[in-house]
Amino acid sequence: MSKVICFGEIMLRLSPPGYLRFNQASSFDAVYGGGEANVSVSLANYGIDTAFVTKVPDNPIGQSAINELRKYGVNTEFIAKGGERLGIYFLEKGASQRPSKVVYDRSNSSIATATSQDFDWDKIFDKAEWFHFTGITPALGVNSTVLAKEACKVAKEKGLKISCDLNYRKNLWSPQKAGQIMGELMEYVDLCIANEEDAEKVFGIKADNTDVSGGRLSHDGYKEVARKLVERFKFKRVAITLRGSITASDNNWAAMLYDGNEYYFSKSYPVHIVDRVGGGDAFGGGLIYAILNQYNMQETIDFAVAASCLKHSIEGDFNHVSVNEVKTLMNGDGSGRVQR
Amino acid sequence: MSKVICFGEIMLRLSPPGYLRFNQASSFDAVYGGGEANVSVSLANYGIDTAFVTKVPDNPIGQSAINELRKYGVNTEFIAKGGERLGIYFLEKGASQRPSKVVYDRSNSSIATATSQDFDWDKIFDKAEWFHFTGITPALGVNSTVLAKEACKVAKEKGLKISCDLNYRKNLWSPQKAGQIMGELMEYVDLCIANEEDAEKVFGIKADNTDVSGGRLSHDGYKEVARKLVERFKFKRVAITLRGSITASDNNWAAMLYDGNEYYFSKSYPVHIVDRVGGGDAFGGGLIYAILNQYNMQETIDFAVAASCLKHSIEGDFNHVSVNEVKTLMNGDGSGRVQR
Amino acid sequence: MSKVICFGEIMLRLSPPGYLRFNQASSFDAVYGGGEANVSVSLANYGIDTAFVTKVPDNPIGQSAINELRKYGVNTEFIAKGGERLGIYFLEKGASQRPSKVVYDRSNSSIATATSQDFDWDKIFDKAEWFHFTGITPALGVNSTVLAKEACKVAKEKGLKISCDLNYRKNLWSPQKAGQIMGELMEYVDLCIANEEDAEKVFGIKADNTDVSGGRLSHDGYKEVARKLVERFKFKRVAITLRGSITASDNNWAAMLYDGNEYYFSKSYPVHIVDRVGGGDAFGGGLIYAILNQYNMQETIDFAVAASCLKHSIEGDFNHVSVNEVKTLMNGDGSGRVQR
Amino acid sequence: MSKVICFGEIMLRLSPPGYLRFNQASSFDAVYGGGEANVSVSLANYGIDTAFVTKVPDNPIGQSAINELRKYGVNTEFIAKGGERLGIYFLEKGASQRPSKVVYDRSNSSIATATSQDFDWDKIFDKAEWFHFTGITPALGVNSTVLAKEACKVAKEKGLKISCDLNYRKNLWSPQKAGQIMGELMEYVDLCIANEEDAEKVFGIKADNTDVSGGRLSHDGYKEVARKLVERFKFKRVAITLRGSITASDNNWAAMLYDGNEYYFSKSYPVHIVDRVGGGDAFGGGLIYAILNQYNMQETIDFAVAASCLKHSIEGDFNHVSVNEVKTLMNGDGSGRVQR
Amino acid sequence: MSKVICFGEIMLRLSPPGYLRFNQASSFDAVYGGGEANVSVSLANYGIDTAFVTKVPDNPIGQSAINELRKYGVNTEFIAKGGERLGIYFLEKGASQRPSKVVYDRSNSSIATATSQDFDWDKIFDKAEWFHFTGITPALGVNSTVLAKEACKVAKEKGLKISCDLNYRKNLWSPQKAGQIMGELMEYVDLCIANEEDAEKVFGIKADNTDVSGGRLSHDGYKEVARKLVERFKFKRVAITLRGSITASDNNWAAMLYDGNEYYFSKSYPVHIVDRVGGGDAFGGGLIYAILNQYNMQETIDFAVAASCLKHSIEGDFNHVSVNEVKTLMNGDGSGRVQR
Amino acid sequence: MSKVICFGEIMLRLSPPGYLRFNQASSFDAVYGGGEANVSVSLANYGIDTAFVTKVPDNPIGQSAINELRKYGVNTEFIAKGGERLGIYFLEKGASQRPSKVVYDRSNSSIATATSQDFDWDKIFDKAEWFHFTGITPALGVNSTVLAKEACKVAKEKGLKISCDLNYRKNLWSPQKAGQIMGELMEYVDLCIANEEDAEKVFGIKADNTDVSGGRLSHDGYKEVARKLVERFKFKRVAITLRGSITASDNNWAAMLYDGNEYYFSKSYPVHIVDRVGGGDAFGGGLIYAILNQYNMQETIDFAVAASCLKHSIEGDFNHVSVNEVKTLMNGDGSGRVQR
Repeated sequence: MSKVICFGEIMLRLSPPGYLRFNQASSFDAVYGGGEANVSVSLANYGIDTAFVTKVPDNPIGQSAINELRKYGVNTEFIAKGGERLGIYFLEKGASQRPSKVVYDRSNSSIATATSQDFDWDKIFDKAEWFHFTGITPALGVNSTVLAKEACKVAKEKGLKISCDLNYRKNLWSPQKAGQIMGELMEYVDLCIANEEDAEKVFGIKADNTDVSGGRLSHDGYKEVARKLVERFKFKRVAITLRGSITASDNNWAAMLYDGNEYYFSKSYPVHIVDRVGGGDAFGGGLIYAILNQYNMQETIDFAVAASCLKHSIEGDFNHVSVNEVKTLMNGDGSGRVQR
Repeated sequence: MSKVICFGEIMLRLSPPGYLRFNQASSFDAVYGGGEANVSVSLANYGIDTAFVTKVPDNPIGQSAINELRKYGVNTEFIAKGGERLGIYFLEKGASQRPSKVVYDRSNSSIATATSQDFDWDKIFDKAEWFHFTGITPALGVNSTVLAKEACKVAKEKGLKISCDLNYRKNLWSPQKAGQIMGELMEYVDLCIANEEDAEKVFGIKADNTDVSGGRLSHDGYKEVARKLVERFKFKRVAITLRGSITASDNNWAAMLYDGNEYYFSKSYPVHIVDRVGGGDAFGGGLIYAILNQYNMQETIDFAVAASCLKHSIEGDFNHVSVNEVKTLMNGDGSGRVQR
Repeated sequence: MSKVICFGEIMLRLSPPGYLRFNQASSFDAVYGGGEANVSVSLANYGIDTAFVTKVPDNPIGQSAINELRKYGVNTEFIAKGGERLGIYFLEKGASQRPSKVVYDRSNSSIATATSQDFDWDKIFDKAEWFHFTGITPALGVNSTVLAKEACKVAKEKGLKISCDLNYRKNLWSPQKAGQIMGELMEYVDLCIANEEDAEKVFGIKADNTDVSGGRLSHDGYKEVARKLVERFKFKRVAITLRGSITASDNNWAAMLYDGNEYYFSKSYPVHIVDRVGGGDAFGGGLIYAILNQYNMQETIDFAVAASCLKHSIEGDFNHVSVNEVKTLMNGDGSGRVQR
Repeated sequence: MSKVICFGEIMLRLSPPGYLRFNQASSFDAVYGGGEANVSVSLANYGIDTAFVTKVPDNPIGQSAINELRKYGVNTEFIAKGGERLGIYFLEKGASQRPSKVVYDRSNSSIATATSQDFDWDKIFDKAEWFHFTGITPALGVNSTVLAKEACKVAKEKGLKISCDLNYRKNLWSPQKAGQIMGELMEYVDLCIANEEDAEKVFGIKADNTDVSGGRLSHDGYKEVARKLVERFKFKRVAITLRGSITASDNNWAAMLYDGNEYYFSKSYPVHIVDRVGGGDAFGGGLIYAILNQYNMQETIDFAVAASCLKHSIEGDFNHVSVNEVKTLMNGDGSGRVQR
Repeated sequence: MSKVICFGEIMLRLSPPGYLRFNQASSFDAVYGGGEANVSVSLANYGIDTAFVTKVPDNPIGQSAINELRKYGVNTEFIAKGGERLGIYFLEKGASQRPSKVVYDRSNSSIATATSQDFDWDKIFDKAEWFHFTGITPALGVNSTVLAKEACKVAKEKGLKISCDLNYRKNLWSPQKAGQIMGELMEYVDLCIANEEDAEKVFGIKADNTDVSGGRLSHDGYKEVARKLVERFKFKRVAITLRGSITASDNNWAAMLYDGNEYYFSKSYPVHIVDRVGGGDAFGGGLIYAILNQYNMQETIDFAVAASCLKHSIEGDFNHVSVNEVKTLMNGDGSGRVQR
Repeated sequence: MSKVICFGEIMLRLSPPGYLRFNQASSFDAVYGGGEANVSVSLANYGIDTAFVTKVPDNPIGQSAINELRKYGVNTEFIAKGGERLGIYFLEKGASQRPSKVVYDRSNSSIATATSQDFDWDKIFDKAEWFHFTGITPALGVNSTVLAKEACKVAKEKGLKISCDLNYRKNLWSPQKAGQIMGELMEYVDLCIANEEDAEKVFGIKADNTDVSGGRLSHDGYKEVARKLVERFKFKRVAITLRGSITASDNNWAAMLYDGNEYYFSKSYPVHIVDRVGGGDAFGGGLIYAILNQYNMQETIDFAVAASCLKHSIEGDFNHVSVNEVKTLMNGDGSGRVQR
């Protein structure tokens, strides 16, 4: 009986140490992560009772993924066991002009082949308040598309708020397929989260005058995207992250929140990157926390951006920060002075 | 144009450092290996021009497997590229009474889904003298069963000697399936290599009075198995390894060679284990080297056992030893005195 | 509401990597452990709902200890937060004739300075069946002596079975002090666990003709000790471990169980040591599991010894093994053959 | 018989590798350091015969601290042995907007409980020219306050110059307590070293218009602080470091020296931080070296700032640089070109 | 029979991990590299059949160097074996204002003592199109000076294009010696590669108004140097790298190409440095690849600079990048966005 | 002014981590060591004021060697600086039947090219009581042969006792050369230390019926060798180590001491090997300590063997054990029980 339910895939992530390239590595650092799992850990770190729902193989690798979630206080009681394998992704960390590189090896994972019999949604959502998923889950295959719809349906019936991070992954499905299925799921969604590319790729909604790879961001373009999203899907809130990629080592990071009425922009943080994977998920976790705690709109976007700004300084997919640490940054202290 | 051709799967092997269990690991040591690949490296280390034939995905993980073979001098020109993924196996190293544990994650690998169009056997076997494969390759699936047969057929036509290590893997197929398919392949085989379990599992040929898990080995039982194998399949030679498992840390290691006429036993080495995976493959590599170099029967089995004895002291799947090092041990110096 | 409650200290353990001595180390491997915490992890690994009760400082080091327990499924809801510090112990791993060395830095720890207000025993023991503690807890100081008595009293009132591992630590108190305080606590204890030195040091009860440091063990001596313990304290069961220390690398490991009536001896395992710390705690965890699951006396001692035998092959204080793994060994397979 | 005597605490510093947070670490990098110890190593590296005076426990951890000082050429003959423990501090390295975090575990250390009988100041100061301590030492407790006073008194009598780095630590004492005790000690001090916060926290002397956490630094404010310090305590020299904290990864670093007459400002270095702990101590070490070598005022502050600028690029507490390396930077070459 | 032949020294490079200084290291990261070897790996990575020619000792260290080249696809068949040792260089990585430091231990290496009998130039250059060497090779000693001349002579006779990177090393020879010998070799050279110091040190040809250590670069000065070089030696092309050293952590990187007619400048990349050793060699490899592939002059310099820009983000001497990766950067995408 | 003076070479030792072979290593563990340096550290660890005399290059690698000696309390004031390089040796650790392998890269080292002007023997031996060197030092070359003779001569004149470990190294000189030069040096020697091969290789004095590589040791043979050595060179004492090499992982270790009158045999220790390099030097250090402390003959050999037995459990060349630890073992406790 957790307050927030996150549903999706958790993968084993394997990275060469430091800045080694794949072909230089004689070992891989191993962590576990995935879009929705990352959100669940963010929330658990903030003290919110959060359950992560997935299916993992009944072997030591699957158990290790569960253990990692448990370590950070996530409720794992609804995780099904079985299927063939835990999805894997290989991550090579970029630096300067060399981009980070992800090699996915996730097909045929236990969650991608899970079925309705693996999850008792009625029980899972009992007394819960919030349901979170991302566009990755339905993209995993027919089975998980069905599961995502079932989960949304039951969650809605039981009165939960629903958030979805569009998270378009071109290796998993085409824009056409994504647009169709995600379109159907959007009717359940209260809070829509997107980055600068998602809306265009999934729904063909474009931020005009924004050249993403060049790191130039137009505020007006973002507003336009948010407005169009709300018009089409009647979201209560739309949040869009604004990443200015200078190099793989340095980014600017900001976001905007729109409630169908007004646009709230956060400040923009210049971040020196330790590990940027999971930045968007940390943003999602921050949003949900702030909304559950009745922050006003400006505070909500400020908290979410500060939380995800900090994520960029933390190794692994998970955002290991406390509410106090986020608030300190949100309130203006980003000087990084030693805390004794 | 290599002298020896090995055909099979190469996998990424991921192991927790030292004696950590899977759920304690925050990194995995990464090497590459597989039954036939291991044989190819053994032979390359002995100075034999050897090609390894497989298919790997066209991504940095596949390339890393190729690089590792190339590093040790294996000819990789016939390796096809494509398919979805490189097979993976997770290895947890045992110690004392705790056994080593393997978790396979190899299904849907590039080699398991390869087809005849990936390999030009006529060209591959051009000017070659020896073809080696193991029972793992046909076990990977329908495609690779077909490929194994094609390879055997062409190799035989072109006059190569063929060796096969039975290498039964219960996760890949049933004894029935294995028995049927391997039975068909055996007609091509000149040298059959087996360990204490293979003959029983694959062909129902049993070493009487031998309790394998208890580490008790009856010489007469082994002879009986070898004799029956030769009777049924007309092998020119049968080689059987004799592993006495005392604990995960200490084994006795020996083998027997049978030419349909006489039985040749090696001495038995008490080994303190660093890494026993690939011990059987090192044995196969030693056999092939010795036969290619016209060693007599006793020398052949002595060389092969000394080579594989040394493998137990070497990390990873590959047997990184030279002919001289094997000969030193084979000639009686196993004292491990520092060589300056 | 857990079935088993363990109460005591959890410490940060810092060890030089491999076999380095303290003055050679430029890093320390960090795990967490302690007599009762180790038992709680054993039981959680066996699937028993187990809570560990302690107090840790409200800082990231204290939280890391909690996280580690949580990772392995231990219920941490009753852990109090506050006080000054987490106890630390430095462990230098021995080898061959060089013994392992422990440097304690545990005084003034949060649990040593905890008070009755930190624990609601009534709630903690609610619906529980078993309470476990060791002689280390009352030895930490006046406060924890009081806490141990309170816990025993409430546990007894609520009908729990109580087990205690004598675990004499000469750095914490004198034999006199230990004898007096432990003597008072023994009236609550159903299952008494001891090693070859404890009974003598704490209660002056001696195993005749046993020279512990020389590794010679007399079965009759052990019987005598067990009998005297039962006579004096009316334990339902006494279990004594029998460690034969050959060198720091090789031990023989066995134990005896006595129910006031008959003596049950386990087989003796020759163990090649990876990490012997926590061996006794793994034994305690095995005993409790077996008793909770109604094993007969011989099965109980066999399970407990097999469990703790395996512990010697596992890094860290915790015994990361499953019931199945213990049963495999208990049923005779200690050959360490690779499990695929 | 060393030329410079430093007196204070040396601690074991434990840091998660790289940028891991405490709860992600499975090992800690271990170095030794402390305000005055760091100064002693700086001076030994510059070729000055320097002794470090402290008390460490008579165990391998205490010995390791001594060994580390000895390794870098510090005279350790006056280090007393005994007491309970070596102080520890845990350091989590920050990055970008996430600050570094220190968790102290230093109470009850051997030096905090040392007494006059541990040190023969007359012998220690024999033929010495300079005595250095910091505000941390008297803050450790009543005992060390007494020791600091005794040391100052004897040093003064024997004609040594005395330097003190205010180094206010809020975990150790209140501003009130610090102000009172440090006030008494200041009468012995010739060279007072402070950072932007110390003068305010300890003596209520404030740099107007300087928002330290925001990284804005007013030269006039610093001058004012220095002037007030000299007015109140009659120091011969006051040196104040000027840290502009942009983020945890990037700082600006400069300093000012005042002789009661004129203000000397160094250039400001933009530093990309490897490890900023000990930056202030490296500054102190540079000051003492320059003064002992009769550098003029401008050269003195330039040398000290260049030395401490380099410290930010070096792992651990100690500043491992040579006089030549400092001079190269001080003379303008901060281009970091490879030196072959 | 490779298309490109590189001739020179390959050394074992030993570096303290991360940013540790030499005296802090208890291990060294080991890679292999050297000016010409680095170029050969660059070209092999681009798919060009490239052989590296050198001599290494007939021991496991020499073999490891060969293996490393083989791993990345370099043809090693012409490497001679014998002599006493593999050259070594120790590299301490700098950061911020602290420069990287190289300690050479290369004298008496196998290649420095090799003779004409070790290499059959006629065979080596058979069917090759390009020969590359650097000023380091003749600087190793009398023997290698002779070898360099022989190689140039035979290469020229067989119609190969010849490139030379001046690569002045002050530890190996004086400017006078270098000027004389390099002067003689220049008559064979088609493409001359130099950095900002080489032309001055070797030939006394100076870039006016350029203060290299201060990181100020005058385009006109570079043009002047290139023009004078072409005037004196009749090179077909001269390429000069333009490094702006801000600190050891941040550089600007650009280059110029001159064909005796026009000057082509690349854009300038601000690089955040992971490992800058081999940057110039990566530039050379890029030049040769572009010229072999008939890139026009502007494309050639753009490709070479993008390639070497990427090198700064890669650990070790070798530039592990593909043609596609270089082209992506060359075509403007240096934003470092994650590639999934 | 140290009590014991050791003179010889200290080298950088580079070893692949764990049991990796050279061609598998991507890093090397780095320690420093050498026959006489190892003895000096043993003695410093026992509290004897000991100086090590050598010459190292004036670079950070040479300084690191000095620092390492200093760390363990060795007096380094007489170490000369200059010359070209620090000798290096590569060590691959063996296991089971695979022997450890040493690759020397020591020629042209600073000490091998040192001259009389580097050392003021009169000052070095001032107030010293013991001089120790080994057969390695004169073997380094003409210069060091001269130095060894000078040192012996001055030491004798000043009344020091002199010990020499024959330590024959076949890579450094021939038996003929060794026999001649060592023969001349023996006239100065009071205590001669040898292992089972040295006497035969250097002086043609053979232990009859002893097959060293087979690990069979005849006590009578050793007696015969010792007697012949004393007859020829009039040593006051001869000590011979008795290594029974079972495998690279397990040895038996014992020794014999002869005073020209009686033979004293130590017990034989079965050692499980962590690192056996320096075992002989630890023996030498133990002998010198025992003799300096007036142990009787039996105690002397017992102490020396126990000390060197412990060395086999310690990583690196140096023997990091205390007098108490040696005595505990010497007095019979080799059980390796945890010391708390």
